Amino acid sequence: MAQDLRSQEVRNPIDVAEYLFKRLQQVGVESVHGVPGDYNLAALDYINKVGLKWVGNCNELNAVLRTVSLASVSDFRPCMKSSWKVDLPAFEPRYAADGYARVKGISALVTTFGVGELSAVNAIAGAYSEYVPIVHIVGYPSTTSQKNGALLHHTLGNGDFTVFSRMSKEISCAVSMLNHQHEAAVLIDNAIRECYLQSRPVYISLPSDMVEKKIDGDRLNTPLELEYASNDQEAEDYVVDVVLKYLHAAKNPVILVDACAIRHRALKETHALIEKSGIPTFVAPMGKGAVDETLPNYGGVYAGDGSNAGVRERVESSDLVLSIGAIKSDFNTAGFTIRMSQLTTIDFHSYGTKVRYSEYPGVRMNGVLAKVTAKLGKLNIESGPIPNNNIPEKETASSEPTIKHAWFWPRLGQWLQKDDVLITETGTSNFGIWETRFPSGVNAISQVLWGSIGYATGSCQGAALAAQEMNIKRTILFTGDGSFQLTAQEVSTMIRNKLNPIIFVICNKGYTIERLIHGWNDAYNDVQEWKYKDIPAVFGAEPGSVLTYRVKSKEEVEKLFKDEEFSSGETKKMRFVELVMPWDDAPAALIKVAQAAAKNNSAE
Amino acid sequence: MAQDLRSQEVRNPIDVAEYLFKRLQQVGVESVHGVPGDYNLAALDYINKVGLKWVGNCNELNAVLRTVSLASVSDFRPCMKSSWKVDLPAFEPRYAADGYARVKGISALVTTFGVGELSAVNAIAGAYSEYVPIVHIVGYPSTTSQKNGALLHHTLGNGDFTVFSRMSKEISCAVSMLNHQHEAAVLIDNAIRECYLQSRPVYISLPSDMVEKKIDGDRLNTPLELEYASNDQEAEDYVVDVVLKYLHAAKNPVILVDACAIRHRALKETHALIEKSGIPTFVAPMGKGAVDETLPNYGGVYAGDGSNAGVRERVESSDLVLSIGAIKSDFNTAGFTIRMSQLTTIDFHSYGTKVRYSEYPGVRMNGVLAKVTAKLGKLNIESGPIPNNNIPEKETASSEPTIKHAWFWPRLGQWLQKDDVLITETGTSNFGIWETRFPSGVNAISQVLWGSIGYATGSCQGAALAAQEMNIKRTILFTGDGSFQLTAQEVSTMIRNKLNPIIFVICNKGYTIERLIHGWNDAYNDVQEWKYKDIPAVFGAEPGSVLTYRVKSKEEVEKLFKDEEFSSGETKKMRFVELVMPWDDAPAALIKVAQAAAKNNSAE
Repeated sequence: MAQDLRSQEVRNPIDVAEYLFKRLQQVGVESVHGVPGDYNLAALDYINKVGLKWVGNCNELNAVLRTVSLASVSDFRPCMKSSWKVDLPAFEPRYAADGYARVKGISALVTTFGVGELSAVNAIAGAYSEYVPIVHIVGYPSTTSQKNGALLHHTLGNGDFTVFSRMSKEISCAVSMLNHQHEAAVLIDNAIRECYLQSRPVYISLPSDMVEKKIDGDRLNTPLELEYASNDQEAEDYVVDVVLKYLHAAKNPVILVDACAIRHRALKETHALIEKSGIPTFVAPMGKGAVDETLPNYGGVYAGDGSNAGVRERVESSDLVLSIGAIKSDFNTAGFTIRMSQLTTIDFHSYGTKVRYSEYPGVRMNGVLAKVTAKLGKLNIESGPIPNNNIPEKETASSEPTIKHAWFWPRLGQWLQKDDVLITETGTSNFGIWETRFPSGVNAISQVLWGSIGYATGSCQGAALAAQEMNIKRTILFTGDGSFQLTAQEVSTMIRNKLNPIIFVICNKGYTIERLIHGWNDAYNDVQEWKYKDIPAVFGAEPGSVLTYRVKSKEEVEKLFKDEEFSSGETKKMRFVELVMPWDDAPAALIKVAQAAAKNNSAE
Repeated sequence: MAQDLRSQEVRNPIDVAEYLFKRLQQVGVESVHGVPGDYNLAALDYINKVGLKWVGNCNELNAVLRTVSLASVSDFRPCMKSSWKVDLPAFEPRYAADGYARVKGISALVTTFGVGELSAVNAIAGAYSEYVPIVHIVGYPSTTSQKNGALLHHTLGNGDFTVFSRMSKEISCAVSMLNHQHEAAVLIDNAIRECYLQSRPVYISLPSDMVEKKIDGDRLNTPLELEYASNDQEAEDYVVDVVLKYLHAAKNPVILVDACAIRHRALKETHALIEKSGIPTFVAPMGKGAVDETLPNYGGVYAGDGSNAGVRERVESSDLVLSIGAIKSDFNTAGFTIRMSQLTTIDFHSYGTKVRYSEYPGVRMNGVLAKVTAKLGKLNIESGPIPNNNIPEKETASSEPTIKHAWFWPRLGQWLQKDDVLITETGTSNFGIWETRFPSGVNAISQVLWGSIGYATGSCQGAALAAQEMNIKRTILFTGDGSFQLTAQEVSTMIRNKLNPIIFVICNKGYTIERLIHGWNDAYNDVQEWKYKDIPAVFGAEPGSVLTYRVKSKEEVEKLFKDEEFSSGETKKMRFVELVMPWDDAPAALIKVAQAAAKNNSAE
């Protein structure tokens, strides 16, 4: 009763679901990923209502609705919010929301209680690990069903309706359970703000009976506060002075940029420092794409044993490394082979600054970097290596027609265009890309820390959609044959949504040497070889709507890259390439990483 | 040091991993499902060593091994247990382990830390919900890496190595973390025993450095104790007397069998009671297949408004219902429409017995049922309906060539054979099957409570493998077009493992009426139509190795069912059928459920 009164009192009343989606729209979401289910159906109606686009698979939903179509129309409508219908676990939104967020800055994913949300747990954990902001909205059974402990489908059958939120709490920076009308708006605002500021997933439960509850719509007139809190100015000034003292004294400083500079939104300040200072600048693998690689002081990828030519020597001989947003994980350091002394390092992070061993917690990098740039004095600059996309001499001299990694990745760099979105799968692709120098503005997406294979194809769907919304012309995917198998369905979603990414599936079958090396028996090495480029047609692409290719030689790659229809950002068709590479070849970086790991192991 | 001494002292020393897999073998596991990853690679070597079969996809593993093949062989071997390589999330084992367990009695699933295990969370939660015993073994980073909080891939980057086990604890009846050699055997034994006895998933962590640790192999000579503890005899006798008192006094008793009779292994006692007593016997939807449907006193499916013809009247007019293993969930009761008074019900469960309102906790059904059967006196039997597979008159009279649900499901019953394994997807199939009377021995698999779409195709892979191991001739899958899309890759795994299930994909596209009903806009109703029967070829099936069909009329179904190669259990080829059904048709049970739900909703 009290609640009903309250709902009548609110000015400009708005439904909870509408409020939620309008808030998402305000922070930059234009498309919502997800899968419909009976526990979220009512909410989905609001997505289009507020002008968002829905990206979801609803075959099974349609199948279910179809099955009840013999019930009369008047009977049917109330069913929409009932608890008896069938949900389906996500396939395409699993990683797509992650890819979308990496291009657009934030994304939203709608799943349904139990089956839907648990299918997304791996993707959400990956986003948590890699600082990707996803607002995960889970359609819940009604608060009444929850209170009664009803024995509903998608439950563990034990009346526990909090179990899945407890699981998700481990991989979310905020959990908002919308069980009471009067706190819904505050909980929604808090979740979205935390998602953005911490750059990590949040979890919002939306029970079916909360969807239409009325709350104060005027609240939407006050935008969410998404600015990072300013540093304490005295502390910031102190840190800036310390940094400048070391920087001005340094003989050959370098800048090293890593993932957190991207994910915690310090690229503007980072770029300003790089450009104004002229300090040789390198990126860690997870920072690839963070820096404009056409800058004269861009020096390449630093990853210990896996570094680009000349980079390791330059970085490790530096007497001051300005390390921005580092994540020193195993893959990102080529198996912990980086060699930098903390005595010659200044670390800039979202959570604080560290100068040699002096820690300044809470002094966020953005403000510090901006002031350091503003106050820069004369610096000692010792130039570093200048990477390029020249094909190594060994490769140009080779008469071998096959496509080797050493040849391909620099060649790719020549073909890439400004502002391309480039997704590489964990495996040969995201190691190969270390040898590609980018045009400016390339957004390189990979999952180096979490490393969940299958990610890239899913991510590509979301990234391609976000790119389309931002008028970015080309989204390019590199995945491996095995990885592709895990999430091949995403291609179906791309076809349905008329997305036009350029997809390369690296086909490099070959198992004999594994058998020789470790004597595994047949069952380990029996691999099911798919006819990859037939996939779009099987998934229902209209004849002629997808361009498919199979390239087996350097000559064919050259021809492909010179094909205007294939390469143009104006081509509206998906392009699907089987890129055949030798089974016994690998990118140099990966070989080095393997050797480093072997060395590391034998030292144990 | 102490550990080393201890390891030298153990008699008949055996590696931890070998012990684990031998124990699994002892309880009936013949094949292990899973996905290789660097954190579980060392353990996988033992699967074949002990004589188990490995069922996993290792394309990506091969891709990874391939990439490091340029490192020398001697360098390479140590890499196998290192922490830098690439894992892949499961696709095919997600539900396959569940299907295998439902045929074989228990199953094992091996995944890798983080990405692999989280990809399996939805399937494991389903198994927890539906009482399916799966031993989930997760390959962990070494105990040293865990202690050091190393920043490894597949972690959240925060040094927390217990977070995923905490998540899995919510959906496991036991968690065994194998962090210490001296307790490994006890923890393994405990987990497997709990898995079997509670018939629910358990979680075992296996750190890479524990795999080869030596433990006491003689312990394997003592088989695990897998018998249910006997009831307290005095209490059991008391309950038996009470049950018999009511049973002998009843005028028209019925038996109602549900899922827990299957999952908690009370079928032998249940069958004995049904056969000796002659009491009319019915099954709940989740109990379908639990009872020999060729028995003269088998009466059909009871599910309130969704019951078979005549069943509701018979059950609800009974003055005593012996309810064995009930799970009164929404789908299993056609939307909570069953009408049985507790005053006329005796509930038999794994955890106790309940006679009217008198509860006898801890008095397990098996012993009680056996004694009740043994002591049966004269009963009043009022016969019930006798289901058959006759085509309804309306359908036989119809000149309509299309395949209607009302025609198809009884027709299917005529075609089914003794001991078929029959998997139906949540949706039209698992409602349709209510109208099919089975030959004896049919094992009907469905996920009525958890209801995760995509389950059936995955489950089919595991079920078909288990069936093959048990020399069961036919495994038959019914899924919907939308559901199939979620886990279509499982077909690839089936092809690779040379399994020969008979797969029906129900194709019943059609969206217009949904638009009419609820006015959703295009985005909701755009469905990507696949060329389903081309899937096996795209997945690399050899030409001629898979028989594919598209049937659009009753006549074509008749021809198909009479085709000896298609129908024979001796056919070694997979058979893949597109079963085209009208978009505006649904099984009678589902229509009733829809109406019930509508009624239920409008009463709110």
